[in-house]
Amino acid sequence: MDKFKLPSRHEAGVYSVWIEFSQLAVTTKCLNLGQGFPDYDPPSRFSDYLAQVATEKNSFFNQYTRGFGHARLVKALADLYSKLIDRKIDPMNEIMVTVGAYEALYCAIQGNIEVGDEAIIIEPFYDCYEPMVRTAGGIPRFIPLRNTKPNASTSHSSDWKLDPDELASLFNSKTKLIIINTPHNPLGKIFDYDELTMIANLAKKHNVLVISDEVYEWLVYKPTQHIRIATLPEMWQRTITIGSAGKTFSMTGWKLGWAYGPSYLMKNLCVVHQTAIYTCATTVQEAAARGFEHEIALLGTPNSYFQTLSDELQPKMNYLFKILQDGGFKPIMPEGGYFMIADWTNFEDQLDLNSETDKYKDFRFVKWLSKNIKLQGIPYSAFYSEGNKRMAENYLRFCFFKKDETLKKAENILTTWTSSLPKKKSKL
Amino acid sequence: MDKFKLPSRHEAGVYSVWIEFSQLAVTTKCLNLGQGFPDYDPPSRFSDYLAQVATEKNSFFNQYTRGFGHARLVKALADLYSKLIDRKIDPMNEIMVTVGAYEALYCAIQGNIEVGDEAIIIEPFYDCYEPMVRTAGGIPRFIPLRNTKPNASTSHSSDWKLDPDELASLFNSKTKLIIINTPHNPLGKIFDYDELTMIANLAKKHNVLVISDEVYEWLVYKPTQHIRIATLPEMWQRTITIGSAGKTFSMTGWKLGWAYGPSYLMKNLCVVHQTAIYTCATTVQEAAARGFEHEIALLGTPNSYFQTLSDELQPKMNYLFKILQDGGFKPIMPEGGYFMIADWTNFEDQLDLNSETDKYKDFRFVKWLSKNIKLQGIPYSAFYSEGNKRMAENYLRFCFFKKDETLKKAENILTTWTSSLPKKKSKL
Repeated sequence: MDKFKLPSRHEAGVYSVWIEFSQLAVTTKCLNLGQGFPDYDPPSRFSDYLAQVATEKNSFFNQYTRGFGHARLVKALADLYSKLIDRKIDPMNEIMVTVGAYEALYCAIQGNIEVGDEAIIIEPFYDCYEPMVRTAGGIPRFIPLRNTKPNASTSHSSDWKLDPDELASLFNSKTKLIIINTPHNPLGKIFDYDELTMIANLAKKHNVLVISDEVYEWLVYKPTQHIRIATLPEMWQRTITIGSAGKTFSMTGWKLGWAYGPSYLMKNLCVVHQTAIYTCATTVQEAAARGFEHEIALLGTPNSYFQTLSDELQPKMNYLFKILQDGGFKPIMPEGGYFMIADWTNFEDQLDLNSETDKYKDFRFVKWLSKNIKLQGIPYSAFYSEGNKRMAENYLRFCFFKKDETLKKAENILTTWTSSLPKKKSKL
Repeated sequence: MDKFKLPSRHEAGVYSVWIEFSQLAVTTKCLNLGQGFPDYDPPSRFSDYLAQVATEKNSFFNQYTRGFGHARLVKALADLYSKLIDRKIDPMNEIMVTVGAYEALYCAIQGNIEVGDEAIIIEPFYDCYEPMVRTAGGIPRFIPLRNTKPNASTSHSSDWKLDPDELASLFNSKTKLIIINTPHNPLGKIFDYDELTMIANLAKKHNVLVISDEVYEWLVYKPTQHIRIATLPEMWQRTITIGSAGKTFSMTGWKLGWAYGPSYLMKNLCVVHQTAIYTCATTVQEAAARGFEHEIALLGTPNSYFQTLSDELQPKMNYLFKILQDGGFKPIMPEGGYFMIADWTNFEDQLDLNSETDKYKDFRFVKWLSKNIKLQGIPYSAFYSEGNKRMAENYLRFCFFKKDETLKKAENILTTWTSSLPKKKSKL
């Protein structure tokens, strides 16, 4: 049956860190701070909308809707983003609804990468970017964010920066696109105005498309502010921005996302969507539309979920930071998202990780921790290309969108474990 | 901005008959018998399940679930199909859940076609097959079903057959797969045991994969029976079978489908799904699982929706047949599905279609009918390759999964129109 082996262009998509570590969490019965979703119910109004929509008589919300997005949803999205980017967005030609932001990324990459095109990917990166580029026949060119303050007593996601000269050196006539992710998963970095301007200037100079993955746009912690690169001068016309209902409403199981941008760029995404999926579930689209209409009316008020969510998560973030610091990790304080990266190498000479056989030591540590300490994160090198994974081995990622009770359990697990470790000379 | 033109491999996906004719139905405000979905509510138990699932506290049905399929759903599907194909199916390795059967087809084709591979497609065909093959770099080889009884007084979908020698001549060392569709959209044909055996023998002889699109598996009209090609001798190991919750529960807006087959074939589909989508909406998967559990308990009883649905549709089919025949069309009686093909050329010399500029006359007729008579079908040549569209120009497709009231309206529209036509000599 060798005739039926996987076509070569799909090989980059075979391994998934999520599948490996989700399964490990189940088999080790550990406390799972690995995957990014809440372990408590979001506000009931969003799920109530879905329940209403499902059973409205003669509504036909259980039947097919418009392929590029349910009319009420694209209208709500156009209303919202027209305000946010201060530009009138055409709901029928400048927005497409997708099966999660994931499918929006797939369509944006598949719909633009011609075989041999180059795509610039900033490391760390959400792990699907690389197989999406390779499957399309593209060549990823990686550039890592570099920690500009490696000796700081407290590390902050804003310390991690692109080297402008290094970035400029990656652009050439084959460069089709650059993918940015702000607020950033896994690092929690939010690119500031100067950083976005530097990227935008290179994109304009080399006539390059920007795919801006902004799924954590509402997960922003004071005092940092999220800036949309599409709002920078002359950037609307070369930017596709991607968002997520799963992240916006804390409903990851809805698998609903979108892309917006100028119609001549959106056309390509529409063709891929039309070939691969055709249309998204109507019920969740109608429910999301109602959710947005509710939130648009509250925008800028203290009752807006877009505000209350980060207000709710900021104390959890601070708590996880303290837990990790007290436990002997060196965490990096994020500016956005719901993940935190932590350096774990303080434990390295006290542990024997030889029971694990993975190539990279963060994988060995995370597996050891799941099995022996019953706490799970995600190895940071999963977010790097093969050539740069060594840069990432000292870290792992935790999610703090969890009940306080869950975070307390994590604290207890770490306290019990670290108090059992032999005291280190360097700590005496 | 020519740099951002659509990558060449996607060009076959640009045109969609559904988008053109859905929009036409809206602008002409016509009675739409074009698209395939009911214009009345299916049994409320399925939508009630969705409403329950959406609001169950601490259930996490609004959060991510397993990427290759929600555990309860793949278990229900394995239970059902294990009975139907008399073989124990492993829910975790032999089934994958997808965003509609559409995504299952995409994954099956993308996950198997290496650039230059050939795929045999039977005409007429559900229109996405061709762009899916071409986007993957494959070469479609088309073979039409031929009307073996062109002079029959009443035409039947079973009259349309493959020529075995013609089919055999398409197989060669580059043939990777053949796509079959039974019950068939748009023709309503159900391939019988001898036809499936002939196809199976060629697939085995040439070591070719069979993708069997069986989304209308429960839409089968007495006395015909649906046979799954995976149940033929030695065919399980080379068949991927595709199904649809939208068609099974008459909930097209759920956009939920699946593929099943041996694990070594399913692996390739999983990689594509993982790269393009990652996971499907949890809520609709849990609701579909409950729907299946309900139906599995009723299987073979008169209360099974899998039985009542076709009992409900068979009179509608007979009614539409009569309406079309009385109206001057020559309809083809289907054995399955919810579509009917009809020859419209009886009107040809009485109409001036020059107001329409489409290349094929069925497109001109369908548009003329939408605009002038306010009744819409789908031109049959949309289901043929460019080289064979002339074979299909005499026909159009109607959907009969509509309220009796809607079909009555269609009858009135046709009666009014045809009584206004000048009497034809041949009819005197």
